[in-house]
Amino acid sequence: MSLTLIRGGRIVTAVDDYTADILVDGEQIVAIGRQLPAGSDTRVIDAAGMLVFPGGVDCHTHMENTFGPSVTADNFASGTRSAAHGGTTTIIDFALQIPGTSPLQAIERAQSKAASTASIDYGFHVIVTQVDEQVLADMRHAIRHEGVSSFKMFMAYPGTVMSDDAAIFQAMRMVGQHGGMIALHAENGTVVDLLIREALAQGHTSPRHHALTRPAILEGEATHRGIKLAELAEAPVYFVHLSAKEALKHVVEARDLGIPVFAETCPHYLFFDDSAYAASDAEDTYEHARFVMSPPLRSKDSQNALWTALKTDDLQLVSTDHCPYCLKEGHLGKVNQKPLGRDDFSRIPNGVPGVETRMTVVYDGGVRNGRISLNRFVELMSTAPAKLFGLFPRKGTIAVGSDADIVIFDPNEAHTISAATQHSDCDFTLFEGHHVHGKVKKVLLRGELLVDDGQWVGKTGQGRYVPRGELGKYW
Amino acid sequence: MSLTLIRGGRIVTAVDDYTADILVDGEQIVAIGRQLPAGSDTRVIDAAGMLVFPGGVDCHTHMENTFGPSVTADNFASGTRSAAHGGTTTIIDFALQIPGTSPLQAIERAQSKAASTASIDYGFHVIVTQVDEQVLADMRHAIRHEGVSSFKMFMAYPGTVMSDDAAIFQAMRMVGQHGGMIALHAENGTVVDLLIREALAQGHTSPRHHALTRPAILEGEATHRGIKLAELAEAPVYFVHLSAKEALKHVVEARDLGIPVFAETCPHYLFFDDSAYAASDAEDTYEHARFVMSPPLRSKDSQNALWTALKTDDLQLVSTDHCPYCLKEGHLGKVNQKPLGRDDFSRIPNGVPGVETRMTVVYDGGVRNGRISLNRFVELMSTAPAKLFGLFPRKGTIAVGSDADIVIFDPNEAHTISAATQHSDCDFTLFEGHHVHGKVKKVLLRGELLVDDGQWVGKTGQGRYVPRGELGKYW
Amino acid sequence: MSLTLIRGGRIVTAVDDYTADILVDGEQIVAIGRQLPAGSDTRVIDAAGMLVFPGGVDCHTHMENTFGPSVTADNFASGTRSAAHGGTTTIIDFALQIPGTSPLQAIERAQSKAASTASIDYGFHVIVTQVDEQVLADMRHAIRHEGVSSFKMFMAYPGTVMSDDAAIFQAMRMVGQHGGMIALHAENGTVVDLLIREALAQGHTSPRHHALTRPAILEGEATHRGIKLAELAEAPVYFVHLSAKEALKHVVEARDLGIPVFAETCPHYLFFDDSAYAASDAEDTYEHARFVMSPPLRSKDSQNALWTALKTDDLQLVSTDHCPYCLKEGHLGKVNQKPLGRDDFSRIPNGVPGVETRMTVVYDGGVRNGRISLNRFVELMSTAPAKLFGLFPRKGTIAVGSDADIVIFDPNEAHTISAATQHSDCDFTLFEGHHVHGKVKKVLLRGELLVDDGQWVGKTGQGRYVPRGELGKYW
Amino acid sequence: MSLTLIRGGRIVTAVDDYTADILVDGEQIVAIGRQLPAGSDTRVIDAAGMLVFPGGVDCHTHMENTFGPSVTADNFASGTRSAAHGGTTTIIDFALQIPGTSPLQAIERAQSKAASTASIDYGFHVIVTQVDEQVLADMRHAIRHEGVSSFKMFMAYPGTVMSDDAAIFQAMRMVGQHGGMIALHAENGTVVDLLIREALAQGHTSPRHHALTRPAILEGEATHRGIKLAELAEAPVYFVHLSAKEALKHVVEARDLGIPVFAETCPHYLFFDDSAYAASDAEDTYEHARFVMSPPLRSKDSQNALWTALKTDDLQLVSTDHCPYCLKEGHLGKVNQKPLGRDDFSRIPNGVPGVETRMTVVYDGGVRNGRISLNRFVELMSTAPAKLFGLFPRKGTIAVGSDADIVIFDPNEAHTISAATQHSDCDFTLFEGHHVHGKVKKVLLRGELLVDDGQWVGKTGQGRYVPRGELGKYW
Repeated sequence: MSLTLIRGGRIVTAVDDYTADILVDGEQIVAIGRQLPAGSDTRVIDAAGMLVFPGGVDCHTHMENTFGPSVTADNFASGTRSAAHGGTTTIIDFALQIPGTSPLQAIERAQSKAASTASIDYGFHVIVTQVDEQVLADMRHAIRHEGVSSFKMFMAYPGTVMSDDAAIFQAMRMVGQHGGMIALHAENGTVVDLLIREALAQGHTSPRHHALTRPAILEGEATHRGIKLAELAEAPVYFVHLSAKEALKHVVEARDLGIPVFAETCPHYLFFDDSAYAASDAEDTYEHARFVMSPPLRSKDSQNALWTALKTDDLQLVSTDHCPYCLKEGHLGKVNQKPLGRDDFSRIPNGVPGVETRMTVVYDGGVRNGRISLNRFVELMSTAPAKLFGLFPRKGTIAVGSDADIVIFDPNEAHTISAATQHSDCDFTLFEGHHVHGKVKKVLLRGELLVDDGQWVGKTGQGRYVPRGELGKYW
Repeated sequence: MSLTLIRGGRIVTAVDDYTADILVDGEQIVAIGRQLPAGSDTRVIDAAGMLVFPGGVDCHTHMENTFGPSVTADNFASGTRSAAHGGTTTIIDFALQIPGTSPLQAIERAQSKAASTASIDYGFHVIVTQVDEQVLADMRHAIRHEGVSSFKMFMAYPGTVMSDDAAIFQAMRMVGQHGGMIALHAENGTVVDLLIREALAQGHTSPRHHALTRPAILEGEATHRGIKLAELAEAPVYFVHLSAKEALKHVVEARDLGIPVFAETCPHYLFFDDSAYAASDAEDTYEHARFVMSPPLRSKDSQNALWTALKTDDLQLVSTDHCPYCLKEGHLGKVNQKPLGRDDFSRIPNGVPGVETRMTVVYDGGVRNGRISLNRFVELMSTAPAKLFGLFPRKGTIAVGSDADIVIFDPNEAHTISAATQHSDCDFTLFEGHHVHGKVKKVLLRGELLVDDGQWVGKTGQGRYVPRGELGKYW
Repeated sequence: MSLTLIRGGRIVTAVDDYTADILVDGEQIVAIGRQLPAGSDTRVIDAAGMLVFPGGVDCHTHMENTFGPSVTADNFASGTRSAAHGGTTTIIDFALQIPGTSPLQAIERAQSKAASTASIDYGFHVIVTQVDEQVLADMRHAIRHEGVSSFKMFMAYPGTVMSDDAAIFQAMRMVGQHGGMIALHAENGTVVDLLIREALAQGHTSPRHHALTRPAILEGEATHRGIKLAELAEAPVYFVHLSAKEALKHVVEARDLGIPVFAETCPHYLFFDDSAYAASDAEDTYEHARFVMSPPLRSKDSQNALWTALKTDDLQLVSTDHCPYCLKEGHLGKVNQKPLGRDDFSRIPNGVPGVETRMTVVYDGGVRNGRISLNRFVELMSTAPAKLFGLFPRKGTIAVGSDADIVIFDPNEAHTISAATQHSDCDFTLFEGHHVHGKVKKVLLRGELLVDDGQWVGKTGQGRYVPRGELGKYW
Repeated sequence: MSLTLIRGGRIVTAVDDYTADILVDGEQIVAIGRQLPAGSDTRVIDAAGMLVFPGGVDCHTHMENTFGPSVTADNFASGTRSAAHGGTTTIIDFALQIPGTSPLQAIERAQSKAASTASIDYGFHVIVTQVDEQVLADMRHAIRHEGVSSFKMFMAYPGTVMSDDAAIFQAMRMVGQHGGMIALHAENGTVVDLLIREALAQGHTSPRHHALTRPAILEGEATHRGIKLAELAEAPVYFVHLSAKEALKHVVEARDLGIPVFAETCPHYLFFDDSAYAASDAEDTYEHARFVMSPPLRSKDSQNALWTALKTDDLQLVSTDHCPYCLKEGHLGKVNQKPLGRDDFSRIPNGVPGVETRMTVVYDGGVRNGRISLNRFVELMSTAPAKLFGLFPRKGTIAVGSDADIVIFDPNEAHTISAATQHSDCDFTLFEGHHVHGKVKKVLLRGELLVDDGQWVGKTGQGRYVPRGELGKYW
């Protein structure tokens, strides 16, 4: 057996905060204590002066994701390596049900992409694009036998992945009865589409029109609708990438009544706002393509409301929606990237990188700036996603019996974020030039070091699929 | 050094849930692990099949409390013994500022009562009845040097302990700047008093009129007022014994905005409602005196709202307001008990016992009935009060370095609650005859057994004062 | 010139209440005064002891309406005669845009049906079922040149009349710019349809399943959605037949913010609730078909909320949605009536009669029961619909220059409502057997008597089309 | 009999808007019609092209009001003349209960001040400063026999006029049973007082500190408290001079539930905001004394919310709180005016003039700016106050049988407001230099001209006391 002793760190969980040693035997934590003895064959890692967190869990990533002709800059190899550098040891990515095929086939395809390439642990949400009796049966099967208990559906993108309300309701009702959950992309798709067509018809083709054609009120509307469908279906519901106070309002109202509504926001909504877009076509340039994600950046008011909601637990997670497309064509050989939409914003592949910066920027902007406590930081980064999506207690905490997914973090080390020093295959980061305090020093995945003093020491393919069971045990 | 090993229990904290051994060295937990070795001098406690909780923290008790001519049935000796049997290892009791004297003298008096008699750990809130510059200075001193960082003020009981809004505001502003907190008894005192005088003048003297003269709307009003005073004072505020949805509404609204408003409810509000009182004078008897506490029992709607709020964290604590007066005169020699008000409800000393039943009834009615999760139970019973009132991490969790205040709880043992088998000096319990599942088997205070298989093995006076520092570190 | 003097009545408008004479010259009111002189050729109507109201305006009727194979029991002749007997002198009925044809053709068809048959004045809302650039242009034309400024769209009934959100948004935006308004039937159509298909598939075919498959939450959802689309479109919006508190809530919230959202409810929602349906299939009979209208009857809580909203002006109108289908086949030769759905609730033509009872039941249940004031009654029955839909000041008030549409009403006469004594061609009324106080005695339309002491003295075809202009002048 | 014919004006009431002649016989309107005949002895007033409104009703004035050593600049003679020039023909002023005396004596004293000096009609609210059984009986007597059905109580000004909550509740309950209403000055008096004492102690003596020591949150708190007391008392309640959105919020919430809560705002809150005060002591001058009224000016956000509420009927009245003290000592011989507080803001007599500008500025800023409709303007200025306070239908409308209190208003005449051209004895107006459209041309009180083409033609003492009966008939 391989033993590792993490010596003298300040261990922080969602609730606790104390200094002790952690003993890892194989893949799991087996003891936590004061001055635990180390045998001669025990690898000792000194964590004195460091914060020791459970490994981050990012529930919203898109590795090797296809958007029309475009494929994200990161595949599972580069993307999970990037994640690990940022302290994240588990992701939940997506498996797309191609219309006419089964969700089970989608899982198979996703598994085959990740299996030998991921260097951190992973699970999948299935993106459901079509609902019928067989699909519902396959979803049931996926919950029980495939470890997939969450399913994403789209209220936007008519004609491609959008589901109508009846399909969403049917899926919700089924998963509500069988321990699953629907995650919704909530924007009113038919109206957004109309606005896009009108904008293009009027010659408004530049990137800022991406934001103008996706108004916050339409996210609010769809969020309300999704909650009401879930109430009728007697099912929990989860909102991905919640960005607008108009949407948050409905989540707060439902949660006050004890209705099982959950939501994530993303770092870009917490640190950027719609002033990032040009105020007029005159000032507009292709450069704003970097801020083309859906939903787009929102008002400063929304941003403040998101931070408050992170504190009050009206938002439970910060996920990245890591979906990087390069700003320039040809970077590392990637083609069909954001320049594709240079003359037609609707063709810019939507998305930004984020998996590597998530913990760092939330620590710096959240904990250091006094917006959230250190315990809450760990809850947002690791415990809450693990509990919500069925990974707990294997993931999400530092406790005896849990996987030894551990981040050793120097709260005082200052550094400047730059795409140049990151590990994603994407050519930019929104946080370029941000000077932050707090740095991921070492990362262990199930007892194995992936990152050591900031250097990659992990192995491609050492990540493992984490099947998840019925949800709801820890709500 | 004395070593104790608690073997094989299912350890539950506010966030974790796993099976392991706990090693206690002296007063503290020093290690938690799988199959920890036990030396020959190690006392081993078998916890297999048991739940292992951190010791309960009850932030609202009144031991040896005076209400006019009446003194509560429990002093610190009997009251803390009763608490321990219920799994509570720390209480925060009260020190009353007698008008014209200093809060510091109040602390001294309280200390002298508890010092050699309490068998569990304890702290004090000072009840502030008079505010001037010197009192404010003494309060500041109490936070910094006496370990008292919370102060209770009354919006009710004009002429005795009621403070006017200006006094409350002044106190809030001061403690807000110095790491303290005001706890409010929120009922509109002048109107309640008028209603009482009118009721008595009309010959409505029986116990049920206690409830009729303290309408929920007046608790709602005062709660709103308290929140607004705290907002203006830029200070946190805590509401004791919140009972009515009319009051809860304002707490929810404030918390949604991230304003630091906190509140407890009590077990009697969670398990009894105003149908307990006679519906008419015709059916009225002195027997309803058992339900004379302030605020009185509320509607079933309020009760349901309280349970929802415990789940959504809109209420953070369940405290007992343990303030027992006997139903019969002369029980164990106690006089001036509830019969004092047989012909005038306003003379019935207000209050009920509860410190021994708190954890049992919330476990049975909350966890077993599916209203709250097991983690949330521990948070409500122990972690949240410890964090809120400055006892954490010494109290409130099971973690390396924390006090070894530990409850070993059999979740399956069924029993029937009865005053006859309880350890309070009071002659009744509201829960008489309630058949519940879940029983406190063993209780350790700082490594020492107080209760062993339900039997008292503790020592009077072994409790210790726990000074608390500035609050707010764990919010 | 023909002169009529209405002598000594108590004239009640939406604001005033006084006793005076009204002089009518031709079609209009020319003077109101104390003891106005009557010439020898002046017809004098004694109104002493009577209430004198402006003629009722019912903005939601379906005369000669087609629902699949069924046609309503009332055509314009019988329906408007029935209306007049109930004190209503103006209706706004509907003109259905058949997909593939123009709204203008719809108006033409409707005009031809009503022109020579209506005995009270009338206007039309066009039901828009399809939106494109030409349709939008035709709608604009209808506002400017055809006197049609309101358009109804359906969020329910997919596959027949339902519009998607983009179509509704486009139409709203256009009418918002040109002085028109969209009226919405707000239920989530795709989910309702699913529930219906599922119910039938499970053999739940009886009439009560009509109600069970149209839950209130889906009206609430659609109402919220309609409001948000209108906000985005910067247009006013009107909700027809609002029935549920879940929907009302959103209207209240919007109106508090000054957003131009309007809504009607119907008498059946004010006087009946869902206890009218059988509680179980066991008790179920075809008889419940009488309560098959959309939305269905709602909870008692909703009913109470509707009454409150009528008082607070959160609801502005009481319209009837008069859409009568007979309970028995063959009554007056009508076929394809409600029995059509005896074995399949989805085939029961939806709707109930109401145009004759509206003013009577709202007077009795509203004014006499103390729920609304007499002025408010007149506002709801006449003034508000006239102002909202562009008929004011020609209709909706008793003032110099207004049409002499006048109801003389005996507030004290008691009578029992019965289909047998009504004037509709429908074979039932929901109010059968209701004993009420207050009776329409005489009705004048533009100075001509239609009803005299309860007897019909009007002429088929004497009603006239009332073109309406741009809306919004009186909001 | 003296007959007057007002020829051809555009008559606007709270609901109607039409062109006709008005015939006045003696004090009342006897006919309204098209081309009414004029006898040879009929005085004819040409109103062609003019708006014709019912006379304004201002429910909140302080003529000859005492504030410590100060008396307002206007007595009933100058104040009512000023009112008439502004189109107001009825005021409700105040009668102060001197502690230890009866409300009935207060009425007597007020009557004697106004009786021979007022040139417009008037009523009184009694200011109740002390409540006991006799006072309650006298209040009941005042409602039944003295025509005084409204009573003002203060939640502010401890030690002088403030009542405690129990007194307010008792008074509310009594008037609620007997057709009266309590009007509240809602600010938390004890906290305001503390803030004032602290400010002065810190040397913050200049006028802007008047505003800083009366924060909006304390108006919000008191407003909520007043509503809850009224709910418990089952009585209607009226809030005077509501200024802050923090207060409005509670009024809106109550009104949505159909609870009888009413409120006025004042023109100064609609046209000025807290940017009027110096931003710092450095910029501070005595000049800000002109903005010293209670409550003080509020934020721009509050101002916008007030305008919205005027539209949505969440505010029902615009009263002036006309309470003028001169800015300079000695103007027209007035002493102890605002300069009294030059070195101590707490000694500045609180109040501003307004009775003459009310209708003009609300017409210009409200109707012309598109914030409210013309009908709503009349409702706010005249109908709503008359209905709310028991003056209707004698006052508040243009209808047969009503008093011929009529304003002939030129909507197009532009002019500049100036104290120099006004008729108050005060030396300033907040609206100095405001250029407005719309001018009061002629004013009739019960058929007599008071103002003719802007010139005073009225007589001191021609005003008459208007007894008011039980309230609530027109709500």
